[in-house]
Amino acid sequence: MSSAPDDVLQLLRQRGRAPEPADLEALMRGVAAAPEGLAGPEWVELIDPEAGAELTRALAAWRAELAGDDGGLHVSPAPPERLAALRAELKRRGLDGFVVPRADEHQGEYVPPRAQRLAWLTGFAGSAGLAIVLADRAAIFVDGRYTLAVRGQVDTEAFTPYQIPEQPPEAWIAEHLPKGSKLGFDPWLQTVDGYERFARAAARAGGSFVPVEQNPIDAVWHDRPPAPLAPVVPHAEEFTGENSAARRKRIAETVAARGADVALLTAPDSIAWLLNVRGGDVPRTPFPLGFALLHSDGHVDLFMDRRKVPARTIAWLGNSVTLAPPEELGPALDTLGRMGKRVLIETATAPWWAATRLQAAGVSLVRDADPVALPKACKNEVELDGIRAAHRRDGAAVSRFLAWLARESKSGTLREIEASNRLQKMRQETGKLRDLSFDTISGAGPNGAIVHYHASKATERTLEPGSLYLVDSGGQYRDGTTDITRTVGIGAPSAEMRDRFTRVLKGHIALAMARFPVGTTGSQLDSLARYALWQAGLDYDHGTGHGVGAYLAVHEGPQRISKVASTVALQSGMIVSNEPGYYKAGAYGIRIENLLVVREARIEGADRRYLEFETLTLAPIDLNCIEPPLLTDPERGWLNAYHRRVHDTIAPQVDEATRAWLGEATRAI
Amino acid sequence: MSSAPDDVLQLLRQRGRAPEPADLEALMRGVAAAPEGLAGPEWVELIDPEAGAELTRALAAWRAELAGDDGGLHVSPAPPERLAALRAELKRRGLDGFVVPRADEHQGEYVPPRAQRLAWLTGFAGSAGLAIVLADRAAIFVDGRYTLAVRGQVDTEAFTPYQIPEQPPEAWIAEHLPKGSKLGFDPWLQTVDGYERFARAAARAGGSFVPVEQNPIDAVWHDRPPAPLAPVVPHAEEFTGENSAARRKRIAETVAARGADVALLTAPDSIAWLLNVRGGDVPRTPFPLGFALLHSDGHVDLFMDRRKVPARTIAWLGNSVTLAPPEELGPALDTLGRMGKRVLIETATAPWWAATRLQAAGVSLVRDADPVALPKACKNEVELDGIRAAHRRDGAAVSRFLAWLARESKSGTLREIEASNRLQKMRQETGKLRDLSFDTISGAGPNGAIVHYHASKATERTLEPGSLYLVDSGGQYRDGTTDITRTVGIGAPSAEMRDRFTRVLKGHIALAMARFPVGTTGSQLDSLARYALWQAGLDYDHGTGHGVGAYLAVHEGPQRISKVASTVALQSGMIVSNEPGYYKAGAYGIRIENLLVVREARIEGADRRYLEFETLTLAPIDLNCIEPPLLTDPERGWLNAYHRRVHDTIAPQVDEATRAWLGEATRAI
Repeated sequence: MSSAPDDVLQLLRQRGRAPEPADLEALMRGVAAAPEGLAGPEWVELIDPEAGAELTRALAAWRAELAGDDGGLHVSPAPPERLAALRAELKRRGLDGFVVPRADEHQGEYVPPRAQRLAWLTGFAGSAGLAIVLADRAAIFVDGRYTLAVRGQVDTEAFTPYQIPEQPPEAWIAEHLPKGSKLGFDPWLQTVDGYERFARAAARAGGSFVPVEQNPIDAVWHDRPPAPLAPVVPHAEEFTGENSAARRKRIAETVAARGADVALLTAPDSIAWLLNVRGGDVPRTPFPLGFALLHSDGHVDLFMDRRKVPARTIAWLGNSVTLAPPEELGPALDTLGRMGKRVLIETATAPWWAATRLQAAGVSLVRDADPVALPKACKNEVELDGIRAAHRRDGAAVSRFLAWLARESKSGTLREIEASNRLQKMRQETGKLRDLSFDTISGAGPNGAIVHYHASKATERTLEPGSLYLVDSGGQYRDGTTDITRTVGIGAPSAEMRDRFTRVLKGHIALAMARFPVGTTGSQLDSLARYALWQAGLDYDHGTGHGVGAYLAVHEGPQRISKVASTVALQSGMIVSNEPGYYKAGAYGIRIENLLVVREARIEGADRRYLEFETLTLAPIDLNCIEPPLLTDPERGWLNAYHRRVHDTIAPQVDEATRAWLGEATRAI
Repeated sequence: MSSAPDDVLQLLRQRGRAPEPADLEALMRGVAAAPEGLAGPEWVELIDPEAGAELTRALAAWRAELAGDDGGLHVSPAPPERLAALRAELKRRGLDGFVVPRADEHQGEYVPPRAQRLAWLTGFAGSAGLAIVLADRAAIFVDGRYTLAVRGQVDTEAFTPYQIPEQPPEAWIAEHLPKGSKLGFDPWLQTVDGYERFARAAARAGGSFVPVEQNPIDAVWHDRPPAPLAPVVPHAEEFTGENSAARRKRIAETVAARGADVALLTAPDSIAWLLNVRGGDVPRTPFPLGFALLHSDGHVDLFMDRRKVPARTIAWLGNSVTLAPPEELGPALDTLGRMGKRVLIETATAPWWAATRLQAAGVSLVRDADPVALPKACKNEVELDGIRAAHRRDGAAVSRFLAWLARESKSGTLREIEASNRLQKMRQETGKLRDLSFDTISGAGPNGAIVHYHASKATERTLEPGSLYLVDSGGQYRDGTTDITRTVGIGAPSAEMRDRFTRVLKGHIALAMARFPVGTTGSQLDSLARYALWQAGLDYDHGTGHGVGAYLAVHEGPQRISKVASTVALQSGMIVSNEPGYYKAGAYGIRIENLLVVREARIEGADRRYLEFETLTLAPIDLNCIEPPLLTDPERGWLNAYHRRVHDTIAPQVDEATRAWLGEATRAI
């Protein structure tokens, strides 16, 4: 549509640069396909590392224009001709059906516009889901979070909605796939493990599950956006505490110890951590998309579009990292086969494409966990120092917000979006915010009971007296990623609200105070956070804690605290959230979330090695929501000590009004 | 050795019975190979259902004589010629080694003398272990409980001891089995799952893992005892609440629902529960050994020695249960193959022999859990009424013992064996005791810290002032099986002891009070029982709770409460022990154990279905060992309510002296 504007070309020419207009446009379209973030137009580096203000403005204007074209996404429900075009394409290819997952080839939480095939085809905007299209029927599978949303976003005449895990797609395939028919799938989007389940279902129906060379949606989605191009930048050792060579050597040794010569890395955060780089190809998460092969000598082949890797980053990566175009991954896997290599892949996340290409090349597969995931989860002292600094800074911003909220909510007119905007502003005023770590959940009254609520003009509510307001938010700083939830009483919360809040708090404190022997998993600790609620016949339908990256994904594994059995023990340096909650549908929601770091406990006379948690997050927990008689003495002791620490850390950082409020908000009870 | 005594033959002849002397002797040797129990010579029924006092006396004398010959067991260390004879036998058969597990073909906790091959070969008397014999070396593998004992019982020059799981036999095989050699195993004693692990280890060593037709130990153990023959008796509906036809129909339906035509049952307690019979082939556990096939129409083929099944039991079993000799199991499996049946087996416990025989016969295997295990674990209301009655009765006996102990221990001369004998006497005086449910653990001072301690003349200690005494015991009554541990302060326990005791008690109470949503597993609750200990850097190295049968095994699955991840949710009617502990080696041991039953919780306003525990066990918890300030108000409330209930239930059943003591022992604190 929009070819290079004259002013941009002229300014570039004045600076002695004369890019091919078509190349420049392609680059800018890639830039526009990446999210904006809050750190300013740093992507300009990809066009001209020394661009002045005038060129930057011109490029920014062009980018804004290009970003306005979203490739037909964000239309819900999707126009019916898309489904019709897909069916025609399937017929042309001799396929009887096709599976359309929400995932891209990295299986991450966010996917770039280019990979939002499910949204384009159906209009469904959720972060997890799957459609299956047959000649005469189609289905969309979403989890409990989206059972309501899917009906608003999708033409349910065209796509019958089902709820997973109660109504799994495998059962639907087994029931509806006609005998002898071919159900197609994109082998880049299907994991090895996922393939097995679907293939069995298709076989049960008497059909087959067949990979396609090219995704048929891509053939009919004519204005599909290009791959995002956000700059890949060095992440300094002052934040990582370990250079990439040391990391690569360390992980390469574990790859060798597992009997493999090479590991295929498909998780972008693993690659970013290993190479000490950051990027911005998807929202809220500072990593570049790409693939990598880590060899047992520590060498890495990085498959990534060179256009998003500035010269300074190439220098930073050094000689032991070879940059190659993404399309060379296939030939590289073939080469591993010719060399008789054993290749480690994580079958839960690696594309079926990679496993079959490797096997066809004669590689023997070592099926094991991503070797980066566990070391990445265990933060070193430098990372932890940064993370603590980020939490002190973030805690001051949140405290300023909570003080403002205490003043402003009295009017009874404050609304959800104004509140979350103000919170973002407070974080931006730290001068260090790179981005939010996820879209803020700002839920007043009944909206607080919607666990993955996103406030819009259509849904937002006023913060009314006698209600609860729940705000779950976080920031991306170069030194750390934060994630905090506070629930605030507006006016006077009811006795029931205070009872529930105090039970949630008891669970939060039981977990925060827990000491536990080395070897304990998060699933063993989960019930500590639920016990006080369970005693009243109440529970919450989400996990209690997730891992958090160091200026990386706000949700990371392999550890977690949840009802689901886990084999991953908590280890020193791991970060995990502590976020019990309670949700009364149509009435209110409560969640109290701090981040914790696991560390060695020093206990005199201990019979073995014990671990404990250090709470990282620093902001007051609303005392007006607490029913003090429900707390035991040790619980009260924890709360008072926590609030003393919050006060002593935050008070020096904030304005006088906030400080006055803080003194009251952190008083001992 | 001892052929039929003349007086026995004469008395039988007087009653018009003239058994073949050789048959009679074989029968009596089988009787003598079964344990005695505490219920008198009920086995006489197998010789003459109407035997009078004189014949009973004569038979009992003969039995005692036969029982004196234990087949060379209980010699430790075992004479070295046994190992030499086995090696010669292996050589003769062209085998390079042989695996000798402690298990018999039922994989139960107790094995009859006939199957105690490991004890015969090595002298090792523990309840879990494994030996591997090669031509030039041999090893014995035991767990942490037996690392000391094994050195006292086994010639460690002949058998190098190893500790599992740290030093697993699979690793030893992979290291020591010579390339190309054949490691033999008895396919009746190896489970399907166990086979896989060993076969892989042998393959890694370049050898093979080969089944033998007949166990080579049996060929060289010349005075090996016969299979035990204890009478199989009806277990009345007043205890079971459900007749066998209903049970068989119910379970048969689940077998069919899992896609099988027949289930092979190899667990004797599953068979006893399904057929509503009891037996006495192994100590402390009232079931007969045998195998069964449950067909999807509810018919059962029972493979059991007819000599131990009296006519009244055959009538009780009815027409839908076919009794067949044990040696007909093989041909019956062949028949299933010819009929194209699908057979369910539990690969964790079924003998490899059965799986291979079935597969050779053309059967398709359905690998699934024993279909009886879960329904058996969920007691019905009639069973629960019986179990509650058994606990009231048992609690009175234990309370009488504790009152006696409080008086007698003052002398400072009471010893462990006298105490456990007295406890047994109190239980026998109920007039309903069939047997103990396991060997009593009666440990004074440091002996209390040995988790599986068994007092002997050589090891027993005096109950000294300032020490703790731990007693773990239980009874088998027709209406229920009990299991209780109490830890009693002798004189004045130290502050440390009281601190530890109170932490154990806090864990016990947290579990006892827990309410939890349907779907929760025991492993999710385990940390509740450990939290207070963990906070002080202390833990215990055993599970928190095991299932308990209804006049069956005192340890049963499939539920348990432990650190080990479990997929079996707790369900209404399940019984589980609640037994946190703390053990300071060389000093003292603490354990507080009650049995609990899972039941529906009625909670107003609950957001889903919740379960809770009802405590079954009724006996005082020693208040002198408690540090009251460590208890929270809810914990104190639980303890006082429990003691009130103990008092009100037990006081009417006991003598005045016990009643007076009970009043003091159950006072509110």
